[in-house]
Amino acid sequence: MKDIKNYIQENKERFLEELSGLLRIPSISSEAAHKPDMQKAAEYWKGQLLQAGADKAEVMPTSGNPVVYGEKIVDPGAKTVLVYGHYDVMPVDPVELWKTRPFEPQIIGDRLYCRGANDDKGQSFMHAKAFEYMVRENCLPCNVKFMLEGEEEIGSPSLEAWCAANKEMLKADVILVSDTSMIAPDVPSITVGLRGLSYVQVSVTGPDKDLHSGIFGGAVANPANVLAGLIAGLIDEDGHITVPGFYDDVVEISAEERAAMAKAPFDETEYKKSLKIAQTQGEKGFSTIERTGIRPSLDVNGMWSGYIGEGAKTVLPSTAHAKISMRLVPDQDWEKIGRQVADCLQARAPESVKVDVEILHGGQAYGADLQSAAYKAAEQAYMDVYGKLPVPTRSGGSIPIIAAFERVLGIKSLLMGFGLEADAIHSPNESYLLENFYRGIETIAAFYKHFGK
Amino acid sequence: MKDIKNYIQENKERFLEELSGLLRIPSISSEAAHKPDMQKAAEYWKGQLLQAGADKAEVMPTSGNPVVYGEKIVDPGAKTVLVYGHYDVMPVDPVELWKTRPFEPQIIGDRLYCRGANDDKGQSFMHAKAFEYMVRENCLPCNVKFMLEGEEEIGSPSLEAWCAANKEMLKADVILVSDTSMIAPDVPSITVGLRGLSYVQVSVTGPDKDLHSGIFGGAVANPANVLAGLIAGLIDEDGHITVPGFYDDVVEISAEERAAMAKAPFDETEYKKSLKIAQTQGEKGFSTIERTGIRPSLDVNGMWSGYIGEGAKTVLPSTAHAKISMRLVPDQDWEKIGRQVADCLQARAPESVKVDVEILHGGQAYGADLQSAAYKAAEQAYMDVYGKLPVPTRSGGSIPIIAAFERVLGIKSLLMGFGLEADAIHSPNESYLLENFYRGIETIAAFYKHFGK
Repeated sequence: MKDIKNYIQENKERFLEELSGLLRIPSISSEAAHKPDMQKAAEYWKGQLLQAGADKAEVMPTSGNPVVYGEKIVDPGAKTVLVYGHYDVMPVDPVELWKTRPFEPQIIGDRLYCRGANDDKGQSFMHAKAFEYMVRENCLPCNVKFMLEGEEEIGSPSLEAWCAANKEMLKADVILVSDTSMIAPDVPSITVGLRGLSYVQVSVTGPDKDLHSGIFGGAVANPANVLAGLIAGLIDEDGHITVPGFYDDVVEISAEERAAMAKAPFDETEYKKSLKIAQTQGEKGFSTIERTGIRPSLDVNGMWSGYIGEGAKTVLPSTAHAKISMRLVPDQDWEKIGRQVADCLQARAPESVKVDVEILHGGQAYGADLQSAAYKAAEQAYMDVYGKLPVPTRSGGSIPIIAAFERVLGIKSLLMGFGLEADAIHSPNESYLLENFYRGIETIAAFYKHFGK
Repeated sequence: MKDIKNYIQENKERFLEELSGLLRIPSISSEAAHKPDMQKAAEYWKGQLLQAGADKAEVMPTSGNPVVYGEKIVDPGAKTVLVYGHYDVMPVDPVELWKTRPFEPQIIGDRLYCRGANDDKGQSFMHAKAFEYMVRENCLPCNVKFMLEGEEEIGSPSLEAWCAANKEMLKADVILVSDTSMIAPDVPSITVGLRGLSYVQVSVTGPDKDLHSGIFGGAVANPANVLAGLIAGLIDEDGHITVPGFYDDVVEISAEERAAMAKAPFDETEYKKSLKIAQTQGEKGFSTIERTGIRPSLDVNGMWSGYIGEGAKTVLPSTAHAKISMRLVPDQDWEKIGRQVADCLQARAPESVKVDVEILHGGQAYGADLQSAAYKAAEQAYMDVYGKLPVPTRSGGSIPIIAAFERVLGIKSLLMGFGLEADAIHSPNESYLLENFYRGIETIAAFYKHFGK
């Protein structure tokens, strides 16, 4: 049996070429124009799974974008790992800020630049290559199932129903996911908490057409000013979200756990420097790590109204819009939160305008089981590769489907992420550290070894 | 001498054809792509003035778009009227709301639809045609000078210096302007007050790139949320503008004058219905007419941040922007107000973001002289054509250059406007009532008759 380090060394250029084929497909799930690319990316994955050694692989329809399913059953009595990933990516605007073409993979220094290089094409592809190694070197100790969806970035609207319909086929002991970050290249970590998400779109309508701001200004409510007031009112001076009932279901974290969190390596000065901000800002009484890990938040993701071209146009706009999302923690329910926000905005709106709130999507928060066999196997795998135990961390991000997996399939997930903050996922110039790509493959193979024992 | 009613009747189709030639030129002064159209529109005007009977006409350069100047001197001892208008127009977006093509004039019912049909191509063109009539029928009792600029919609940045450099050439007894509205087709009015304008652009910058709203949300200040808060803070619950010093120079109107204003025909129910709003909104203690006529206001004209495409993108935006304009009344100074707003926003911004405020442009408010010979002549002209005296009104809009004319040239303006609220200037589907176009020509000719006596 060839050592995995040697295997990676001998095949790394092919690995990158195969990954690049996937990266070149602009599979942006939120833009209807890219619908054909979703099918293309799914077919590409199917080919990769078969080539890596799957017994079978297929592109299966859902009510939205297809799911790629593949499997290799080595022994019906062995443990089964279900790998989850997604082949869809985020939009690329503002495209003028990219230094490379967003869908043309390019290696600069020790990083691979491309939309999806990390999230999640790069990370999910490590699983295909670890699988390939174990099949070819005949050391696969578990059954493996792959499930790759094309709607993660829009909230996985079709996957839950698809899982429910294929529950028997998806039976497994653990769901293995690489779609999160680690603390630093030499500080491995496992994400044991994920925030939930509730995403709404707010529209404020005043007069039925844009008006001259001179003729009407001062007498007719301006939807942009009204929307600004509604948004401003959602968070008070202490950083608390003012929506009635918002904190009702929040699980408060014990002083012990908060003390343990405070020991994780974190440099606030470096954090501010890396973002080029003079000061952090958030809920009073909580640290930066706590504000993103154990506390909910509310952010405007987009906002638009009136004239946004160059120069001056003296218009009193007819409408104003905002996309607002709330990150949630256990046990907040995303649909309930969405309704609370909608009710609150409507109750606070003046009579002079009409407010519509649409709940676009969401997902529940998630907490992992640190005593499970899978978690213990992962700890040993990181010890093998990095020589140290992974730090259990809570991510501020959301993978809404993780909570749904537990609810629908009854299977816990294990989040072995190899991303870094510097990867700029969801932003221009997304990249992935090549070293993490290779060490990720190694760590995943080590996980199977320990888990399959 | 042919009666003007007959002259208009015989030539109306030609008048509309000639106006349409001007309307078809998309002379949007705020968009750099339309630079060549400014020259084209100016040349077209030059041709029209010469054809109408001017002794000379020329397209004169300025530091920005050119000014068209033309004149006919009948008698150095006679009174001189200086006609002012503008050949530039507002942008046309949102273009999808237009029922016709914005720069293709089209008559539907009793109206002419086109960007500029009223503001100000249609209104200024009436002066060319009244002039043509008086020249051809040999009844022009005054010297006439024409001055048509191409930067009114962006605040006339070049005209003041051009006037100062051509002061001798521009000598006149009155400046005659049609760029305002009248109360109703059968209720003529003269605008005796104009609000000033101070227009700023605000940019809030947080992190140096768009961030993942999950990873960072709650710990890093969101520029869109901060901007919303800054905007919301500019107006309090009573509709007062909170910028320190904002009202210091406002001339308070006497109870007598307010009582007189309250007698002007105005139907609040009809007003709300025409705008499809349930309620008006503005400064406490003032009526709708007062809020737009004698009181300053503050409006967001445009606002944008983050992801504004379809669907959901969970981004914490790096920047947020707003265009904000203040309408001013005598004796507020627009530059001082711009600086006060900039200082106020910067003082109120949290340390976590950077706020930049650019003062884009502005102009002073204006008050007319109701005892002047020109105003009296105009009253008689309206009496001739409409059988009633014009109502003196105060417009909420701004023609910043009007105050500058008085300051630089020492000449008062007379605002004989024939627009109507229904004309939707600055909005999609701008139009002009054909009847007002013809009666405007008639009233202007009558003005010359009385003024030239």
